[in-house]
This record gives sequence, structure tokens and C-alpha cells, in this order.
Amino acid sequence: MNEIDSLKVEIRAFADARDWEQFHTPKNLSMAVAGEAGELVAEFQWLTAEQSMKSALSAEKLSDIELEIADVAIYLIRLADVLNVDVAEVVRKKLRINEDRF
Amino acid sequence: MNEIDSLKVEIRAFADARDWEQFHTPKNLSMAVAGEAGELVAEFQWLTAEQSMKSALSAEKLSDIELEIADVAIYLIRLADVLNVDVAEVVRKKLRINEDRF
Amino acid sequence: MNEIDSLKVEIRAFADARDWEQFHTPKNLSMAVAGEAGELVAEFQWLTAEQSMKSALSAEKLSDIELEIADVAIYLIRLADVLNVDVAEVVRKKLRINEDRF
Amino acid sequence: MNEIDSLKVEIRAFADARDWEQFHTPKNLSMAVAGEAGELVAEFQWLTAEQSMKSALSAEKLSDIELEIADVAIYLIRLADVLNVDVAEVVRKKLRINEDRF
Repeated sequence: MNEIDSLKVEIRAFADARDWEQFHTPKNLSMAVAGEAGELVAEFQWLTAEQSMKSALSAEKLSDIELEIADVAIYLIRLADVLNVDVAEVVRKKLRINEDRF
Repeated sequence: MNEIDSLKVEIRAFADARDWEQFHTPKNLSMAVAGEAGELVAEFQWLTAEQSMKSALSAEKLSDIELEIADVAIYLIRLADVLNVDVAEVVRKKLRINEDRF
Repeated sequence: MNEIDSLKVEIRAFADARDWEQFHTPKNLSMAVAGEAGELVAEFQWLTAEQSMKSALSAEKLSDIELEIADVAIYLIRLADVLNVDVAEVVRKKLRINEDRF
Repeated sequence: MNEIDSLKVEIRAFADARDWEQFHTPKNLSMAVAGEAGELVAEFQWLTAEQSMKSALSAEKLSDIELEIADVAIYLIRLADVLNVDVAEVVRKKLRINEDRF
């Protein structure tokens, strides 16, 4: 099994064990992605471009950012799961569209 | 190479070929994730929970949603790349934290 | 009538004339605010701090930004309307909370 | 002075008293709007449309939502201030554009 599929199965098991399937409609999961993306961008809002670089971040700040990246990824993979979307496939499809555009 | 790393390398090559590295600061990429998450949530904003289900979506709407999922994934993977963050590792770390919380 | 209330009434009339009340649940309107905030942040994502200043923006770019500010404001005022929230009052309440915090 | 201008002056005074002007670039403020919009949408993500209605919200939940509406409004008004944008004017301009569109 490839890595994104492994994560998908682990995230699905986590949700199923808590009986969260009822909450995990595509609509609700899109909101969760947006909510977590808001927390991610908030981590960076008062930093300059330079201060946002890996070399300038404290270990604690980097850890906070990593967990926000994780939260966005978890809900995005879960949304793709309930919609039966192959993330790697659509990423490559979008890159090809962008190739033509730029 | 695992799948997320493969995508990471492909997205990086796309950015490098267009000399976009200068724009791809962590700060800017966090904004791009939030911007694309906004487009994703907008796809669902006037749908009921039922209308958001895969079985109820038209092929065209599903395709639009897939491309928005791809856009969020592309910038999230790119952000993780410039911060040298292993997405699968932090997702599993966050799932363990959530195991203790819920 | 104060200015925010005037806007509230104009936005409500616009929605009512199109029979959009059915779509304007608080949940859906919160998504619309997030979607428009995503478009707003996207206007700034590749600009440096300096390039984002009013003096550095082209007339066309500023006009695009103004319309994104308007979109966020429209849905925020509409959300406050359907929840019967007084925006000015809660802004002042939050400022007092922040006074104590900072 | 109209109400939005009054709030603008109060928010500006709050920022000035803390020497935050250096952080309040348009770019950073657009991120703050997106971050707070993420917190707002997160308040609604697991609620059904019915549960999101004012009549169904607990007093505590409504208070949380009000403060998130306030946070979005504060940063949106502050962004409009630093860009010298008249919020009421651009809202009405956008409503006229939408009149022609819908």
C-alpha cells in the first residue's frame, strides 16, 4: 500500500473508533480543512519572510507549525477518503494543467 | 521513494523550473494553503450535507472539488518541503496526540 | 440608523429579493466568510510586505483587494444579521477583553 | 463620525498603544483575517444546519461565535484602515456589481 493510502486507512480507523463517520460529511470536512488552514496561516501572520524560514524558527515554533501542517493533512486526506479521491492522482493531474498554464 | 516524497520532488521541480523559489517562503506558502482551502470550502458552501456526498455530486462538481483538493495538497506538500517536515511522520505524531486527547 | 445596520438592511434586501434565505444558515455563511477570506489572503500571497503597502499597489490591484474586503464584510454582516448579533457591540466587547490580555 | 469609522479609530488606538503598527502591514492583516475566519468556520464545522441556527445555539456557544465574528471584523476594519479603504463604500460598490450579475 502506498503511503497516502496507509495514512488514509489510519485516519479512517481513528474516526471509526470514535463513531465520527456521521460528522465526516464532505461539507463538514471541507470546513475542518479551512479551519486548520486558518490556524496554520496564523502561525506565520506576524513573522517576516525571513523569520518564517526554517533556520530562523525556534524548535518550539517549528513543532507548533508541524502539528498545524498535520491537522490540515489529516482532514484533507479524510475528505479525499470520503469522496473516494486519489490525492496523488489529482495532484499530478493539477500539475499537468498548471504546466500548460504557466 | 515513498509517494509523498515523490510528489514533493515533482512539485519542487515544477517550482524550480519557473524560478519560484524566491516566492516560496514558508510565510507565503502558508497563505497559499489558506487561499486554496478557502476555494475548497467555497465549493461546498451552498450545498446541504446530503448534496455534498459523493453519490449526489455531478461529475463536473466532483472534478472541481478534486482540483481544489489538489491545490491545497500541492501547497501543503511544498510548505512541508521548504521546512523539511516529513508529512507522514507529523500526521502520525498528531494522531497519537489525538489518541490521548479523545 | 447607524451605518452597519444600514448595510445589514441592504444586504438582507439583496438576499431576500433572490430568495437566498434558505441558503443563508449560520453554518453556510461562516463558510462563505472563510471562502472570501481565502480570496483576500490570496491577493497578498506573493507580495512582499513592502509590495502590499497602499503606496506600492497598482490601482487595479487595490480595486481587486477592495472588492475582496467587501465580500468578506458582506458575508460577515449577513452572518451577524441571521444570528442577531450587533457587530459594533461585540467588537467593543472583544477590544475590552484584549485590553486585559495585552 | 459614522460607526465603522468610530470602530476604525478605536482599533487603531488599540494597535498604536501597543506599538503594533510595524506588524500591521496589509499582507499580515490579510493573514489575520484568514486566521480568524478559520476559527469562525471551525465553530460551525460539526453542527448541522439546524444546530447552527440562533434558536438552537447555547448561550455559551453563541458567545464564542460572537467573539469570532468580532475578531474577523477587527482585522478586516484594521486592514481597510491601513489601505485607506472605505468599507461601506466598497460594500455598496460590490452589491451593485452583484445586482448586475444575479
